[in-house]
Amino acid sequence: MAITIRDVAKEAGVSAATVSRVLNNSGYAHEDTRKAVLDAIHKLNYKPNEVARSLFKQKSKLIGLILPDITNPFFPALARGVEDQLREEGYRLIIGNSDEHLEQEIDYLDTFIQHNVVGIIASVNEAHSDMLKNLNIPVVLLDRTIESLPAVYADQFEGGKLAARKIVELGCKEITIIRGPVEVKPVYERFVSSFQTLRQAGVKINVFDSKLSFQGASNSVKTLFDKYPNTNGILACNDIVAVAVMNEAQRTGRRIPEDVQIIGFDDISICEIVYPGLSTIRQPAYEMGAKAAEIIIKKVKQEVLPNIHCKLPVQFVERESTRKVGD
Amino acid sequence: MAITIRDVAKEAGVSAATVSRVLNNSGYAHEDTRKAVLDAIHKLNYKPNEVARSLFKQKSKLIGLILPDITNPFFPALARGVEDQLREEGYRLIIGNSDEHLEQEIDYLDTFIQHNVVGIIASVNEAHSDMLKNLNIPVVLLDRTIESLPAVYADQFEGGKLAARKIVELGCKEITIIRGPVEVKPVYERFVSSFQTLRQAGVKINVFDSKLSFQGASNSVKTLFDKYPNTNGILACNDIVAVAVMNEAQRTGRRIPEDVQIIGFDDISICEIVYPGLSTIRQPAYEMGAKAAEIIIKKVKQEVLPNIHCKLPVQFVERESTRKVGD
Repeated sequence: MAITIRDVAKEAGVSAATVSRVLNNSGYAHEDTRKAVLDAIHKLNYKPNEVARSLFKQKSKLIGLILPDITNPFFPALARGVEDQLREEGYRLIIGNSDEHLEQEIDYLDTFIQHNVVGIIASVNEAHSDMLKNLNIPVVLLDRTIESLPAVYADQFEGGKLAARKIVELGCKEITIIRGPVEVKPVYERFVSSFQTLRQAGVKINVFDSKLSFQGASNSVKTLFDKYPNTNGILACNDIVAVAVMNEAQRTGRRIPEDVQIIGFDDISICEIVYPGLSTIRQPAYEMGAKAAEIIIKKVKQEVLPNIHCKLPVQFVERESTRKVGD
Repeated sequence: MAITIRDVAKEAGVSAATVSRVLNNSGYAHEDTRKAVLDAIHKLNYKPNEVARSLFKQKSKLIGLILPDITNPFFPALARGVEDQLREEGYRLIIGNSDEHLEQEIDYLDTFIQHNVVGIIASVNEAHSDMLKNLNIPVVLLDRTIESLPAVYADQFEGGKLAARKIVELGCKEITIIRGPVEVKPVYERFVSSFQTLRQAGVKINVFDSKLSFQGASNSVKTLFDKYPNTNGILACNDIVAVAVMNEAQRTGRRIPEDVQIIGFDDISICEIVYPGLSTIRQPAYEMGAKAAEIIIKKVKQEVLPNIHCKLPVQFVERESTRKVGD
């Protein structure tokens, strides 16, 4: 039979709530009471997680990071940014991949807290807003936003607009926007912004759906040029999808950028080594991760922070999948 | 002034070593001694990491993972394999990137232990063998091997041989092996094996050096075709380097696979979406990670394991950067 907190309370002649207060160093407990509780713990050899936890709590330098999927190349750079910055200050990273599944996100949140993390950086969706706001430890959103919680993210609206303006400026008349899953907020925002910008420009717009993963993108885009054979400009929801589109374009005999111009989103490392090089909207992934780490450490140290939303700028990176201006 | 373990020892009338033994539950300590030590700790309000650590130790479900660099696309799949398998059993992952730097590896090992990990999965080099063997917790090597420690890795010799045989079989007469850094053991092994196999086949062999990272590979391979303009077969040390070579080949007007055939190593997701698709030697990264996690959990649970070295098979994956046999 396991010794419970009630056994300890009985032995020490106090309430379970008092034992808990002593263990958690929360609220007032007289020194004699503290001593009685600790003696009872010792006598009964009571060693649950909670004991360790309370003692450990003040000492842990663990930060939990929840990401959608580390095998999506946008996230390793983000994670390295977090890790390198945490490391500077002696903190360490526990990591969990949610695959954007709510229950997996909750499961990781729970167990991170059980493992005494002192802060959480989360790339999760709105569904958790209540849960996240009610945690007793600091939370920083990364690449996502939830009202009233600190967040670090890139300017998706600006990115979507920038890509759309560029492709119009480069002479494309029938533009296909490849839209990712609408439930992934940053991806949806860049879509909306591109769509609105293109509509204002008065060009022909097609909307084509794709998954974000390698396998998903590869399968999704196979029918793109059958469906829209005359499209001469493509805005992809991320770089992986853009590379899959470049593949499909070359396979169907289209020259890039002469016949079709393609702009990605993210600026993952692949963009530079594929042929032709992929023009894209750069999100500063590493810097976003580092910034989130910097903020969580300040929060852990209870420093006062003025701005809770930190929106980082995006930029157009020109490579070879688009024409040079003036061509 | 901080209370030290020596103050506790003095107060309890025992040696510092005894205090340490009590705190770490290691070695023998009489029950009265234990009590004296714990009383002294209480009286002096001594609360270093170590207290929490010893109490927490038995409870933690944290596993530490040291990787060279999560932004190298081989490693996210490996890490997901580890994480998904750990998750099945309720364990969690602390992660550290070493960049193959000895001091960073040691720093992570130290702090993982301070954070009460119950096991370590390490993708590190031989330099640590003594340190790793002397840890009090289980260690499993991943993608690396150190004699007498459990390890999960792919068959690099077979992979190197397979690639070399294939490129000869496909008709290449002047073959360039792109060798990665010789201090990265699996990369060096595949090089040696390819080299030996090619020598036996009597073809002309060039050896060209490259870094493994995106940026490094991209810069390294720029001079490849200047140096070896007649090479018609290339064995790259990893897929990133292979994609950079494909880029350079296309840029210099070479047709793939008609003029030059290229084989990568790893089978990262990119291989499938670039154009042309990259033929490569597949290492089962996800499965390697999952297997290492399975072994570390068994070790943590003190189950008896028969084979400590687990060598997983590799295979040739044919795509479009090589000719079809018989072409």
